[in-house]
Formats: sequence, C-alpha cells, structure tokens
Amino acid sequence: MLQSKIFPKTRKEAPKEAESVNHKLLVRAGFIDQLMAGSWTLLPLGWRVVTKINQIIREEMNAIGGQEMLMPLLHPREIWGETGRWGSSKDNPLGAQEIMYQFKDIRGREFALSFTHEEIVMDLLRKNIKSYVDLPLYVYHFSTKFRNEPRARSGILRAREFMMKDLYSAHVSEDDLMDFYEKAKRAYSKIFTRLGFDFRITEASGGVFTTNRTHEFQVLANTGEDIIFYCDKCDWGQNKEIFNGKAGRKCPKCKNGKVIEAKAIEVGNIFPLGTWYAERMRVYYTDKTGMKKPVWFGSYGIGPTRVLGALVEVSHDEDGIIWNPVVAPFDIHLIELPGGKAKEVYERLTKEGRDVLWDDRDVAAGEKFVDSDLIGIPVRLVVSEKTGDKIEWKERTSEKIETLSLEEILQSLRK
Amino acid sequence: MLQSKIFPKTRKEAPKEAESVNHKLLVRAGFIDQLMAGSWTLLPLGWRVVTKINQIIREEMNAIGGQEMLMPLLHPREIWGETGRWGSSKDNPLGAQEIMYQFKDIRGREFALSFTHEEIVMDLLRKNIKSYVDLPLYVYHFSTKFRNEPRARSGILRAREFMMKDLYSAHVSEDDLMDFYEKAKRAYSKIFTRLGFDFRITEASGGVFTTNRTHEFQVLANTGEDIIFYCDKCDWGQNKEIFNGKAGRKCPKCKNGKVIEAKAIEVGNIFPLGTWYAERMRVYYTDKTGMKKPVWFGSYGIGPTRVLGALVEVSHDEDGIIWNPVVAPFDIHLIELPGGKAKEVYERLTKEGRDVLWDDRDVAAGEKFVDSDLIGIPVRLVVSEKTGDKIEWKERTSEKIETLSLEEILQSLRK
Repeated sequence: MLQSKIFPKTRKEAPKEAESVNHKLLVRAGFIDQLMAGSWTLLPLGWRVVTKINQIIREEMNAIGGQEMLMPLLHPREIWGETGRWGSSKDNPLGAQEIMYQFKDIRGREFALSFTHEEIVMDLLRKNIKSYVDLPLYVYHFSTKFRNEPRARSGILRAREFMMKDLYSAHVSEDDLMDFYEKAKRAYSKIFTRLGFDFRITEASGGVFTTNRTHEFQVLANTGEDIIFYCDKCDWGQNKEIFNGKAGRKCPKCKNGKVIEAKAIEVGNIFPLGTWYAERMRVYYTDKTGMKKPVWFGSYGIGPTRVLGALVEVSHDEDGIIWNPVVAPFDIHLIELPGGKAKEVYERLTKEGRDVLWDDRDVAAGEKFVDSDLIGIPVRLVVSEKTGDKIEWKERTSEKIETLSLEEILQSLRK
Repeated sequence: MLQSKIFPKTRKEAPKEAESVNHKLLVRAGFIDQLMAGSWTLLPLGWRVVTKINQIIREEMNAIGGQEMLMPLLHPREIWGETGRWGSSKDNPLGAQEIMYQFKDIRGREFALSFTHEEIVMDLLRKNIKSYVDLPLYVYHFSTKFRNEPRARSGILRAREFMMKDLYSAHVSEDDLMDFYEKAKRAYSKIFTRLGFDFRITEASGGVFTTNRTHEFQVLANTGEDIIFYCDKCDWGQNKEIFNGKAGRKCPKCKNGKVIEAKAIEVGNIFPLGTWYAERMRVYYTDKTGMKKPVWFGSYGIGPTRVLGALVEVSHDEDGIIWNPVVAPFDIHLIELPGGKAKEVYERLTKEGRDVLWDDRDVAAGEKFVDSDLIGIPVRLVVSEKTGDKIEWKERTSEKIETLSLEEILQSLRK
C-alpha cells in the first residue's frame, strides 16, 4: 500500500487530553480516532491490527470446537427481565442497570444495548436444544459491547463501546462444564502467548455475571489499572479484589514460592456460570433417563480492541510503537528516498505475499524515519541513490543497519 | 465440519408467522434465528454465507482504492444536530428522527444509534483533511445499522438491525466525485454479477440522505417489495417513486426499447451527496490557490444480510435453498450412509482446500437427503455400502446422479 494514500496522516502532537501511552501513540500514528469519550473509530491501520488479533482468536476458538455466528446488539427488555439483570438493587447481586444503556423507543418498546450476551444465547438455546445429544455446544461471535462506564479512560483500554469476542458453552453436567472450562483456559493462554504477552491468570469475583469465582487473564504492565498478586514459582494468582494477604508472603498454594504484587491490564475473563441462567430462563435438556435438567453454562470473553491498547502499553519506546510481527499492520515498511529503486522491491515483496507499506511521499528523509518509528512496523527497508541496487535493512527493535541485496532480503524473510 | 455438531438442527416446520420464502427456508435450514421482530442472529451456517458475501464486497471495494476501517455505532446528539438530521419537520427534507433510535442515558447525555454514518465520517474528515493533497479519499466499513422501521417484515429483508457495508468518498470537485461515482457503480455491478444476481440499476430519490437523484441496485424477483421500470434494450431504469409514465411505452432514453415493469429487491444504493454535508459540518480543504472550499462527498451502501435474504428469494425450489457456489456455506455435502467410507473422502477433499459438511448423523437416508436439499450446498456426494469404493455425485441444480471414483471427483472439482 502507498503511504501517500493512507488515511489519515500521522500527527506530531498527541491530543491534549491524552494521558495514557496507547492513547497518545495510537492517535499520533493514525490507528484510532476518538468520536467522543470512550468511543473510537478503528482507522485503516488500527483495523488491520484488530483483524489480525481477531484471526488469532478465531483460530484458537475453532480449535476447541467453537462455531462462529453473530448475535444482535439491540435486546428487548423482557429477556433481561427474566434473569433480573435489567434491574439493580441490594438483594440482586447481578443487577446490571448501572452499566447497561437502557431506553424506550418512540413506540414505547424498551430495549437495552448489548453489554454482554448471556441472556441472548440462553434464548437461542431454549428454542433449539431438546436432549443431551444436542450438548455440549460452543458458540461465539465478535461483536460490539456497550458499557456505560462512569469514567471512560486510558485511551482505548476502558471504552464505553468496544469490540468483544465472547464464547458461550453449554453442557449436561458440572464435570463437563469444568473440563471445557480448563480447555478454554488453555486456549486463552495460547492466544495471549501468540500475541506475545507476559501474562498471569488470576482468580477473581464474577461481577454482574456470576457469584462463582472466575479467572482473569492479566498482562503485566506498569501502566495497568489492575493490581494482581501471583506466585513467582507456581500458577497461583488472585486479583486485588479477592486477595486476602500481603505481597512477599509464601504462596498459599505451593507453599514454596513468594507472592508478588504487580500492576496489570485485564485482557480476558472466563466465567463458570453453572445453572443460574438456565434455571431463570428455563433452558432444560432431557437426559438419557428422560429427566428434564437445567443446562450448565460458561462464558469466555476477550476484548480485541483492549488487546490493541495493551499491546502498545507493553511494547513501545520513546519514538513510537513496536508491533509484534504477528499483528503488525504491515510486515515491511519500505522507505523510498530520492534515487531509490522502490518499485521493483515493492513488487517482488508483494508477490511473495508480504504486506508492504511503501513510503512514496515527497517529504524529507528525516520525516520518513520519524514516522516509521512511530508506526512501528517490524522491518524497515530503505532504498536511495546511495544504496543503489542494494537495500538497507533495519529492524524496529534494533539499531543495527545492514546493507543487503533484494535476494538476500527475500531469503531472510523466508526463514 | 461434522453435521452432528452443527448448531442448530434443521426444522421440519417453518415458524407460523413466516410469510416470505427467505424467512421460512433460512430458519428451517438453520441459517438465522429471530430474537424479536426485525432482529436476527446469524447462526453458524448463515454467518458462513455472510462472510463470503462480505469478502466479495471487500475485494471490489479495495480494487477501487477503498480503505477498510470500523466506526462506532453509538453517536452523540450534537453531531446529528449539525446537519439537522436529528430532527424531523416539514421544512427539513432530510430529517430522520422517525427512523433513528434516539435516547438519553442515565447521566442525561443524548445519543442516536447508527442508522447511517455520513455525519461520523464528516467529523473524521474535518479533523484530518487540510489540503487538496489529502483528497480524494475512500473509506468503508462493515457494521451494524439500526432503523426503527414501522413494520419489520419479509424475513431478513427488512430488519430493524442489520449489517451494512458503507463506503464514503471525498473529493475536491464535482467532476472528481462523479468520475468516482461511475467507478463505484461499476464496482457494485461487478459485486452483484459475482453474486449471480439478475439486477437492474434504477434512478431513485435520495430519501433522508440527499435531495439529489441516486441509484439503486435492484434484483429482479417476483417476491420483491419494490416496483421498478427499466428499458429492455438500454441501461435506462427508474424506481416507481420517480417514474412518470406507464409500462409498455418507448424508452425515454434510447427511444428504441420498451419500458418493462417488474418487482425487485433493492440490495444496494449509491448517493452523490455533493457539498450539502460539508457545508453544514464545515469540512473544508485548501485548494492550490490557497482558497478554502467544501469537500464533495458520496456514499455507497450494500446490505450483506439483505443480500443473504435476496439470494434465497431468487434461488430456491420447493425442497430448499440453492446456493451459488461462490457464497455457499460449504462447497460439498458429503452424505455418509451405512457401510460408506466417508473418512478418506472427507480428508482428501479437505486437504484440497474444499469446505466439506460431513453428514455423520445416525439418522435415516431419507432424512439426510431432505436436509441436504433444504440446506442447498451445490454438490452432494453419497458414500454407502452400495457405492463401495465409488461415490455418488449429484449437483443441487440437477437430477442426474453419477457414480465416480474419488480421483475423478477431485479432478472435476479442480476444473
């Protein structure tokens, strides 16, 4: 793609109100644009990254039997009334009115915007599940969530409208649910490992989703809003909300390691919901003996737009973003300077299946290098009169510049 | 994919309230599920088809320079106030209050749900466009639209929440806009040709989008809600709203052909919006002489979920859906009957990159054939004790059954 065509141009200054690194860098580099507090457009560069994040998530969801679909965002009040989550009161621990956008239309019908989809999945299941042979079942979608956060902040990390991949599983028994729950936990770990995160799995409370314990996937980050505690030897971890103790103590699980306190960004959360929803919404199946029983149920969420922000928080320097190659908007940033033979290089690389951003702009070399560091594509190639038939190769994470032939570059990319 | 796993199972009966063919067949075959009037879940089979429709649209949008992104769905009242489309009154021809979902949240802020995105694109442009060198520009997204239709009907054809691909173009002049408008018209024609539609392009009014004339892409269909008039010799066409005449008359354009009246389903609409939006929202660029001028603007929409419904309306028989291979949920339906060696066939076909639905269910042959016709995958293969090492090949559109070897099948698929 030609850089002269990409919308929009980079900016020298971050927005005045920007406090977080992801807000500053993603806006300056042209990945996101703010419509209003907590609401963002994913610009072409940002959309490219989110598409790659989503594809990694999709592959791992399909690998554990997930079936992709797409559920509506506008929900009738009646369905949310069935579980009581439409409301909010002291004796209703899962009441979610505070966080839901609820409204009445001009015809007097009441709706909520999707802050999650458990009730919608339940409605789908009760219409379509009859017997134990229809279970287990795993469905997921990538869709928009709306949450009326008291304060939208931290750039794209805490938005009022954001993207979520949510998977829902349905089972005949608690055992089957918990077997799959562990499988989903491993799939999530694979996803966050592929994305290059240093993360911990922590126990947490269930918020407005369940009174059961749940698990959060927390990326270690100095700029994170969450405080977590984890063992430096085993897999034990808890978030601040439920941890009862102090950092530095012995691990309550392995009795060997030490409890570490750290800041983190939550990027995923999984919920063993049990039969609470099925009982309230009458989602039953008939077992082998002909008995009617409630369906066991779990839900599993990852926020791809939050992942976008978290990637920037943990991988940048003072010059800009440093993308992990698996989610970079382009594989190669080809910088054309006066006298450089960019066209052949661009065509050969593109033919080999590489995504190349070709800086064809009529601006100074310095501006091109500054923009290249800001945008953060993993490999930078420079062609100029000076390089002649050769090409300068520099990786975003290194200061070393090598001068190579096109053939040598093609070879080293194939590795 | 194993048919025993697919959610949900097919249904023998259509929903009582279903009147249209797409409603009946898509629900019975398990492609869509109704949450409430005008609101549909795309189930795994439906999502597969929409994904393929979207990819065809994406390829043609990218081919004319479109840059994909994703804009928010929840919009602040202020932005819609700038063009006056928030309201509705006699002297405000583009007032859209009737069709917009508008509401106030618990903090007193007023919002609209996206019924379209012109105002949002305008806000994005005025923040990022300075000079003529930043133009022209083409951005698009696939996203959810909400329209409070007085009566949701015709299955997935007229929904209150639906998917739309909308492209927006920005230009320095009317000439440049109209050049691109024709280019977009050709891209749309390519898309609908690839989808296998018999369609006509008709002139239409601009509704709540513009007072200029626009163009609709109308699929000829006996069950269509729109009435169009077109010439049987040239490319002249108008919809009922603006046509002033009678069917059977001479074509007003070529004076040679005859005006035909037909029922049709609108699947796309393109709008040469001019400078109306730019003037109201102050989207200006600086031209070569340093003068500030308003940006010329066009928008271009296709409803992929409506395309899904239209495909079924024009391509089915009494037994079920007949998918065009380019958007079929699977390429091949492999029916395993007792004694059939399905596994090797499945693995070889999958290895060759074919999407195969393998009916591994323990049900009668008759039920499998009925479901196969209902779901409508282009090629049906049967393996059974009777066929031995051979395989029965039948296309959905033909009654002919051939008995072939696996090698012969692989060869004929490669053609």
